[in-house]
Formats: sequence, C-alpha cells, structure tokens
Amino acid sequence: MISAIDKMKLAKSAYSSLAQATTLQKNAALSKIADLLIERSEEIIRANEIDLAREAANGMSESLQDRLRLNSQRIMAISEAARNVVGLQDPIGEVIRGMTLPNGLKLAQVRVPLGVVGVIYEARPNVTIDIATLAIKSGNAVVLRGGSAAESTNRVLVKLLQDALAQVGLSSDVVQSVDEFGRDGGLEMMRAVGLIDVLIPRGGAGLIQQVVTEAKVPVIQTGDGVVHIFVDESARLDWAVEIVHNAKVSRPSVCNAVETVLVHKAAVDRLLPAILDRLAESGVRVHGDETTAANFFATIPATEQDFATEWHDLDISVRVVDSLDEALEHISKYSTKHTESIITENVANAERFLAEVDASTVMVNASTRFTDGGEFGFGAEVGISTQKLHARGPMGLPELTTTKWLVRGSGQVRV
Amino acid sequence: MISAIDKMKLAKSAYSSLAQATTLQKNAALSKIADLLIERSEEIIRANEIDLAREAANGMSESLQDRLRLNSQRIMAISEAARNVVGLQDPIGEVIRGMTLPNGLKLAQVRVPLGVVGVIYEARPNVTIDIATLAIKSGNAVVLRGGSAAESTNRVLVKLLQDALAQVGLSSDVVQSVDEFGRDGGLEMMRAVGLIDVLIPRGGAGLIQQVVTEAKVPVIQTGDGVVHIFVDESARLDWAVEIVHNAKVSRPSVCNAVETVLVHKAAVDRLLPAILDRLAESGVRVHGDETTAANFFATIPATEQDFATEWHDLDISVRVVDSLDEALEHISKYSTKHTESIITENVANAERFLAEVDASTVMVNASTRFTDGGEFGFGAEVGISTQKLHARGPMGLPELTTTKWLVRGSGQVRV
Repeated sequence: MISAIDKMKLAKSAYSSLAQATTLQKNAALSKIADLLIERSEEIIRANEIDLAREAANGMSESLQDRLRLNSQRIMAISEAARNVVGLQDPIGEVIRGMTLPNGLKLAQVRVPLGVVGVIYEARPNVTIDIATLAIKSGNAVVLRGGSAAESTNRVLVKLLQDALAQVGLSSDVVQSVDEFGRDGGLEMMRAVGLIDVLIPRGGAGLIQQVVTEAKVPVIQTGDGVVHIFVDESARLDWAVEIVHNAKVSRPSVCNAVETVLVHKAAVDRLLPAILDRLAESGVRVHGDETTAANFFATIPATEQDFATEWHDLDISVRVVDSLDEALEHISKYSTKHTESIITENVANAERFLAEVDASTVMVNASTRFTDGGEFGFGAEVGISTQKLHARGPMGLPELTTTKWLVRGSGQVRV
Repeated sequence: MISAIDKMKLAKSAYSSLAQATTLQKNAALSKIADLLIERSEEIIRANEIDLAREAANGMSESLQDRLRLNSQRIMAISEAARNVVGLQDPIGEVIRGMTLPNGLKLAQVRVPLGVVGVIYEARPNVTIDIATLAIKSGNAVVLRGGSAAESTNRVLVKLLQDALAQVGLSSDVVQSVDEFGRDGGLEMMRAVGLIDVLIPRGGAGLIQQVVTEAKVPVIQTGDGVVHIFVDESARLDWAVEIVHNAKVSRPSVCNAVETVLVHKAAVDRLLPAILDRLAESGVRVHGDETTAANFFATIPATEQDFATEWHDLDISVRVVDSLDEALEHISKYSTKHTESIITENVANAERFLAEVDASTVMVNASTRFTDGGEFGFGAEVGISTQKLHARGPMGLPELTTTKWLVRGSGQVRV
C-alpha cells in the first residue's frame, strides 16, 4: 500500500505542472469540480449517510451531525462556491515590485505558488472542496486530512476533485488525502519537512494548539479569538448597544464574535444596563465583575479564567475599567491578537486604540464580526491568521503564494 | 541576577514605546549611535583586544581573528553604515492596501513592527550594530546573542546602543543582549514563545540548522546557498566565462557564490575548457564528472556529496548534462533555493528556466553574486531568506515588519 509520505511525494512532484498551468486551465478544473458536484450529488449524499449513521451510533452530538451533514441544497452551495473561485483574480504571476538596476539588470518580484499546502481540519466536508479549489486556483498542490467522522464523504469528494483535474488535462496527483491513515496521517504531515511547504490547521483550539506545538513544517495559525470591545466614556448609546449585541449574538460560535466587553467606569450608569438588557433579550449569560453585578440582576461572577475564555456560545465576560489605559492593559494581557474594537466619540482615544492595540484587526465603532475574508472583499477566505509572519488577519488567495525574484541580464558581473 | 527570560520580558514591555516613536525620534537614535561609535572608538578597540588576545591564545584561526577584529577604520565604516540607515525609508505606517466597503467601513492595512526580533550570530561584532540599527529603524526591539568570542566587544557595543537610545529619550530596554548566559542564552531565545516574535540566525550552516530544528519560536532561515549556473548549448563564450568566474572568485565565502556549474553537452567543446582555464588562473579547484576530466587536466573526481556541498572556498563542482531537462532535475535535487542562473541565447530556454526553477532568485545571463540587499537597492540587508513564508530572497526593512488592519466605522453591524 502507498504510504502517507508517498502521497505527499506524489503531490510534490505533481505540483510543478499545476504551478505552470494557465489561469484558463485552472479555471476549467474549477468549473469541472462545480459540475461534478451536481452530477454526483446522490453518490455524495449516500457516502455522507454512511458517515452520519456511524457517527450517530457512536453518540455524535446533534450539532456536530449537522456540521457533517450534506444534502442537495448544501452540495449546491458548495458547487456555487467552487464556481465563484473561477471569478477570483489569479494571484500567480502578479509582479509585486520591479526595477532596472544602474547596471542594466532587470528585476521583477513575482508571485508564485507556495508549493504543497497541507490542511488538517475537522468533520466539515465543505472544507474539502473550499480549500482544494482555493489551492488549485493559486497553483498549489494540496494534501488533505479531514476528520475521521467524514471519512466516506471525503473519499468521494477527493475522488471527484482528482477526476475533475484529470478530465481537463491536469495531474490528478496535486490533490491528495491522507485520511486513510487516520491520526497518523496528520502526524506525518506535521513532520514532512521538505514535502509540505505550509500546514494550515482549521478547527478548534485543541487542534490548532497541537499542530503549532508538534509541527516541524511551517504552520499558519488561524482562528483563535478572545475578542474584546471597549466601550469608552464617550461611546454613543445606540452604537454601543447594537455593536456589542451584533458582535456576540449574530454568530456566537465563530472566532470574530466578541468574548469580553470592557466598559469605562464613567459610562457604567449611562450604558451598561442598556447593553446588558439587550444581550439578555437574546439569552446571553453575563459573566461580570462586581460593578457589573451591581448593575445587572442576573450576573454570574466572573473568574480570572473567564477573561481568557473563548466562549463560542451565548456567554460574555464583562468588566468595568477605570481608564483607556486599564482597557489597553487588559487587552494586552488576554487578547489572542485577532480583533479588538473601541466604541468612542473621542478621536484621540480612537487613534490611540488603533495605534497601540497589537492585533490582526483593530476597529473603531464597528462590530468585530467584520473581520472576515468575504466581508473584506477577498471573495474567499483560507482562514484568519492570528500570527505575525507571512499573513495576518483574513487570508485570501495572495496569502497562499510566495514570491520569486526574476533577474534578466546581458552578461553582468559584480564589481 | 536578571535572567535571559527577564531580559526578553524587558524588551517585550519596552517594545511598544519604540513602535510608537516617530521616524524623527528613531533617526535621532541612529545618529547618536553613529556619533558614539566614533567617540568611544578607543574603548571599543580595547575591549576587542581583550577578545582577540583570549581567542588567539585559544588557537582561533587567523581568518576568524580577522573577522573578529575592530580597528578605527572598521569602526568608522560601521558608524557610516549606522548613519546610512537614517536615510532609509521608514516602513512603519506605510499603507499597503486600503478600501471603503459598501457599508462605509474604511479599511487600511498598515505596516507595523514585528515586535521583538531575536538574532543569534557568530563572532562578527559589526553585526551587533548592523542588526540593532535596522531593528530600531523598523520599530522593533532586539535581543542579541553574539558569539562568545566577541563577548567583551559586544558588551561595550550593547552599552553604547542603550546609551544612545536613552540620550535621545527612548527606552534603552529595547536592546538586550543574552551573551552573558553563553549558549544557554541562545537556547532560551529559541524557546521563548510569546516573547520573541521572530528569530533570525546569522552564520554558518551548523548554526542555522540548529536554530531551525530546535526553535519553538518563528524563524527566518537565511543564507544557505548551493548555487548553480547552467551553461546552455547556445551560451555566449565571453558571458559564460566571465559570469562563472565572477560568481565563484569575486567572494567565494559568501552564500551567493556559485558552487556548481552545469554545462550542456553540446557546449562542452566550445565552452568548457575556456571556463575552466579562467577559473584555474584564479586557483579554483575543479571537482568534475568524467566528461569534465576529459576536457581539463587538473580535474578532481566529483563525488555525489560534492554536488550537495556549499564550498565557501575556491572549489567548484562541474557536471556535463544532456539537456535543459537534466539541468533542471539536477538543480531541483541539490538546490537550497537561494539563487540559480542560466547562461543562454535561447529565449524559450531562458523563460522556461525562470518559470520552472524554484528558488528565491532566478537569473538569466547574470552573475549569482547580485542576490544581495545592497545590489537590489534596499540600502541594507537583514539577510537572504531561503524559505518561502513571510520573506524570500534579500530582506530589507519591510521584511522586519508585519501588518495590521485598521477599520474605522460609524456604528456598522454585520447583517
């Protein structure tokens, strides 16, 4: 049997054919993937039912089953998403910088694919198609390790991806799955120095932490979000109430949802009850400090650990601070450097917050839910990087590339 | 006594003051550093003599002693280099991208410092000032670990850097040295997750390999160079001879010097003897395959290992290949992805080489010695990255930065 390493080697040796492919060829593959998803809907749903039946028997929760489930409507949406990637600008070949040196050498720094992108993710079969189509558009081979719970579904989807590539004359080896090796497949990817150019974990904090700690290959860390909103003394009431509510309630499970609200002590009487009442209407549980408790009947006492917690649910930590300085200190201590927002009417405080907060995205008078590749207009999102090297914040196609300097001479030597 | 970790914590907490400093303030610090180098020349030379005397007694080679030695002329050159950094454009605050979203949110992606840059290097005291001035200009704190052999010299230089910062009203804590902890200082840096934002090893392959293997913090890998020149069938004689000679002989110890020449078999009679004779005039030892030996009297038989060797000296590996394909295969197998060059008159081969070779810099009809921040017009060089993430090729000041998205709103929430 072919090993996980063999599969990564196949991806690596096939990668250059995709790197050299034209945008037209890559787009043909993407359209074919979109077509095959519709054509093979029944087969995909049958495979998905096998996964669902097994996992239901194993006691998988309803919400995880829902995440795993594919029906014809969802397959249609995935197919549409693949077709949307056709319309995205191909980053490959873009000239970032260029100049002619005094000696006549012509330099151009151009975007090229990273090579082989590894992705380890959980049992969400849509990620299989999402990430493969973005990798193909950006000229990268991809090695996938999906959750074991989606094994049958992913087997059908990976075959579909490979068939689509072959049908348009590209190498089907550029898409590989190591699912058949279970957890070992993921571990082999983490150690595949020289075979995996970048490894992207997509999933919960546990998965990300494991990959960051154990990987020997370069990793892009995504999606860890202990996100804060600071309601300053001068905040507008309606903005404070609606932004905090939107940032928590519109989708509490995602990384750009707010987890902690800090309120300036001088704004407590005017703003805090209104903010908390609006949250309570939507069933949000408030974990607050003593001042919060004095202003809101249903406060659960907040622990130190609560302020470091990404709730992923209808829970929120609330703390009253003495000043902007104290808010900045709190954020510096607990932030995962994803997104932080200030609600204020004071321009000096707004500018200071923008300058001093160290995070991928810093906002004034806006909901933290806007930190998103789709909202930013990238047309697609690989993830939201919370690290500083290579990519920071929402990652689109350009973040799946590296660059190469091309130097064209006519016999120049260095003096 | 203060520990290595304490020193990194000091750098981290002081960093934001430098990150917020204006270009004028940072330039004042750089000018002060340049001044103090001249003022304190004698003190620096006395400290350097202590290092030299100890290392000479320990049997340090003449060439390493020369690398360690500072005299007033060399100090003058280091001072001038520091003053040159004043003239470089400050990358901090540069807006890379910006847009207004349909809902009115104003986005700007701006360059910000990485935070704390760690550098581990060998006994070249000029690196202490070089890297610290580049870090200061780009708003980064820096933690230095120089070679133990330069301990006394570096102690005086680090004190000078800190004094200069204090004299212009900046925090002297943004420059830290962990030299006093010897090798442990370097090891602590490699493990200082959350304190060191990026670690750059500057030195030989052994040091770089150790850092890449052992570091838990993000690393930028620099300077590993098994560099090739492919002399194609149609290469011009004079260009082939002079480019190969320049790429090997002008400075054999550096990473952009050529290590292996591949010659198309159809060009052997016309070009190979002339290329090798010119190299031999400069004392280059030729490690060649059988065809090379048949064309050059003094060929040393090349081993497989020779083709993977970065000679760092007046040695060169030579191999005759059947085709451009075979040249590309050889390069793909042995390249460290630093710089590769083709000498050719054939435009199709030139374009194919540029497109298919995977390296930081790919050249046509030019000496590989041009891969250099100074030559590329960056005004300074942090190192030459041979990795794909974050930076690739010569690194200037912008490569010491990350970005941050600033979002200015007026109450927007996500629908």
